[in-house]
Amino acid sequence: METSVVDYIQTHRDRYVSELAEWLAIPSVSALPEHAGDVRRAAEWALAQMNQVGLQNTRLIETGPEQQRGNPVVYGEWLGAPGAPTILFYGHYDVQPVDPLDLWQSPPFQATERDNELYARGASDDKGQVFMHFKALEAHMRQAGRLPVNFKMILEGEEEVGSRNLDDFIRANKPLLGADVVVISDTGMFDRGVPSLCYGLRGLAYFQIDVRGTKGDLHSGTFGGAVANPAFVLAQVLAQTKDRSGRIKIPGFYDDVRPLSEQERAEFKRLPFNETRYRKELGAPRLFGETGYTTLERASARPTFEVNGLLSGFTGEGAKTVLPAVAMAKVSMRLVPDQSPDKVGDLFEAHLKKVMPRTVEWKLTRMHGGRPWMASLDHPFVQAAGRAIERGFGQAPVFMREGGSIPVVATFQQELGLPSVLFGVGLPDDRIHAPNEKLDLGNFFNGVVASAFLYDEIAQVQR
Amino acid sequence: METSVVDYIQTHRDRYVSELAEWLAIPSVSALPEHAGDVRRAAEWALAQMNQVGLQNTRLIETGPEQQRGNPVVYGEWLGAPGAPTILFYGHYDVQPVDPLDLWQSPPFQATERDNELYARGASDDKGQVFMHFKALEAHMRQAGRLPVNFKMILEGEEEVGSRNLDDFIRANKPLLGADVVVISDTGMFDRGVPSLCYGLRGLAYFQIDVRGTKGDLHSGTFGGAVANPAFVLAQVLAQTKDRSGRIKIPGFYDDVRPLSEQERAEFKRLPFNETRYRKELGAPRLFGETGYTTLERASARPTFEVNGLLSGFTGEGAKTVLPAVAMAKVSMRLVPDQSPDKVGDLFEAHLKKVMPRTVEWKLTRMHGGRPWMASLDHPFVQAAGRAIERGFGQAPVFMREGGSIPVVATFQQELGLPSVLFGVGLPDDRIHAPNEKLDLGNFFNGVVASAFLYDEIAQVQR
Repeated sequence: METSVVDYIQTHRDRYVSELAEWLAIPSVSALPEHAGDVRRAAEWALAQMNQVGLQNTRLIETGPEQQRGNPVVYGEWLGAPGAPTILFYGHYDVQPVDPLDLWQSPPFQATERDNELYARGASDDKGQVFMHFKALEAHMRQAGRLPVNFKMILEGEEEVGSRNLDDFIRANKPLLGADVVVISDTGMFDRGVPSLCYGLRGLAYFQIDVRGTKGDLHSGTFGGAVANPAFVLAQVLAQTKDRSGRIKIPGFYDDVRPLSEQERAEFKRLPFNETRYRKELGAPRLFGETGYTTLERASARPTFEVNGLLSGFTGEGAKTVLPAVAMAKVSMRLVPDQSPDKVGDLFEAHLKKVMPRTVEWKLTRMHGGRPWMASLDHPFVQAAGRAIERGFGQAPVFMREGGSIPVVATFQQELGLPSVLFGVGLPDDRIHAPNEKLDLGNFFNGVVASAFLYDEIAQVQR
Repeated sequence: METSVVDYIQTHRDRYVSELAEWLAIPSVSALPEHAGDVRRAAEWALAQMNQVGLQNTRLIETGPEQQRGNPVVYGEWLGAPGAPTILFYGHYDVQPVDPLDLWQSPPFQATERDNELYARGASDDKGQVFMHFKALEAHMRQAGRLPVNFKMILEGEEEVGSRNLDDFIRANKPLLGADVVVISDTGMFDRGVPSLCYGLRGLAYFQIDVRGTKGDLHSGTFGGAVANPAFVLAQVLAQTKDRSGRIKIPGFYDDVRPLSEQERAEFKRLPFNETRYRKELGAPRLFGETGYTTLERASARPTFEVNGLLSGFTGEGAKTVLPAVAMAKVSMRLVPDQSPDKVGDLFEAHLKKVMPRTVEWKLTRMHGGRPWMASLDHPFVQAAGRAIERGFGQAPVFMREGGSIPVVATFQQELGLPSVLFGVGLPDDRIHAPNEKLDLGNFFNGVVASAFLYDEIAQVQR
């Protein structure tokens, strides 16, 4: 790569932030129907950006069945390097909801710079990291007039709601998506100052449990003691799903869990991790989780069961003596190789059938799921990415597993036979999915340079 | 009593409903600050009504300390029967919140008649039952020009939020409130066609539990497994407060519970109760409660522990993979003689201290409480009320205990030394505190007549 590409990036830094802020200003919250128009606007912004940086054949590709359209995939390509490898880049332009809004220090869709961090919903997950590649592409194009590799980019708009139409999209567009390697920047660095390559992701199985005790709410004085309380039943049932040592009590849940190898546990121990600082940053009185594993292992390489939401009865200010008719919980499990979300769903449903009392009606809804994934560390593309990161950040990356889920990585492997390179610049305190999400601008600029080098390094891989 | 009083009531029935509808149209929801103005308007409406029916010295009396005013008590009196007993009538003009609004078949503050029932928030609890006495007073006044007894009326505006200023009001106004007997119509009949006198009420201890795991919401992928989940901890803790047989596990909770006498259990058995019909009306798959007691005993004469509300994390449509920072539960216990809400609060707090893990911060807020109460069945005023009900409804009443709470009954006993007569015309399916609250208009009109007779019967009690 010409040093001029790096020079170009250095001299255009200021413009990058204001351009990114435009995209972040579009509240593309895919979970909320009222933002459907914004989601499409965010897709159109990305389309325009692809054109601007020099991708070709750009277009929005509709997803989902005609009767129930999903959000479009934004597609663009540059195929002017015959004989060179082809990168398939994947990212997403949708973002998480922002509630509770009152905890944001600056408006979530008005990107605000403080202390070299850019605060906004989507700054880190994932608009900011996709934009990093826009600018790496732009630098190559403006300075060399070309890319060292062939490049295809797909950006989806349903990642935060389970990528419900993505698998079908990939299956239906295999020739279009043909490539040698997938590149994704939707993960994080192990810590500030520790550039990282991710070689493992957890899967996900997300559910909603609805419990009904009676046909309507009742007065807790007149009827309290006569019928089961669905909120209490829900609490009882949840309490029977994980024990006090943090072990999940769903029979069969751990059957397919691949044990951590001794080598992996040794790698985990080598990571620069300050448990006290971590605890203090989270503001937790104590850390807690499955007995027998370290905090890092529990948060990335072991399966979990979490309550994501609870709702029943009266939740406003004051006291209302209601005996609620219904209670609802959102719960999810993070999965590790070789668990499958479908099988875990079956096990959970069987467990609920056993522990749910016959005093209530109940329903389990499977919201979405994704398979866990692990890469081989010595794969040439993984090694190429390691060199690119070292050139962009000035130091060799650590290799780590992430606790989050990117189900499409397993799909790329399964449907297209493609390996994935997961190079992310998020930080553990980026508060993705929470108020005050932000992106470290130092990481962002290094990430643009590393991405530009990544295309060079991948160009040189012998296939 | 002159038959002309009964005649008067019969000939003015049509006007009563439209007058009552005016009062019901005022959304005097004391739990919600935004309805403060409506609460006062409902008080002013009651004041005007007192004037209209012929009470004297009517006024709003402010409650609470000057810095933090409560809702006013509406006062009126008629003291023109020297030598006769004095009734102190108590009722309330505030109502419960109406959420969930979409479950109402007609607007909650637009009284709607269907099948001889009047649907509106407050129709049964308690505006409709207070209004029954307005019309009984009016009939005496219009036809006889006087009442057979002395009469004092107080209506409070904070019953649905725990009557927080009422005890102080009573203590500060003992001479004003001097009387021989308290009359309250804020309870229900045992069943349709079964006029009833209530001789026992449960007490109440209401709490909010707040649990915090971390300083902010976290991504359940990145951090799931590393820290305690406050929603799960809350579920665990609630599950440890009542066992699967419905018995409350707070140590010491049952120590002060007066056992049901054999005579009472025999009375309970005699009540016309169809358990299958009851279950079907509630829409419960099965009835449930403390082992060893019948449904009626559990719902009125045994203490309870209920979850009134749950809130944590993401509760909207769809799936958000959040690890919540906080979780909240509203819980309450119904108490029976001789339990005290303060002591039960202490026991509950001690229990939470024992079962709450040290992985979270938590807070227990005591929202409000009221003592349980029981009357002697052979008291002359209770017997007088029995005769009045028989004359109004054409059949002798049953004597029953109610599961609800009217803490002021215990206060009248304690502070003023007054017995209470609890004569109510609500029905078990009136859905007070729930959507589609209603009042049976047949009971209402019989209740106006019975109330008019009640003043006569009390006038004849030898003190």
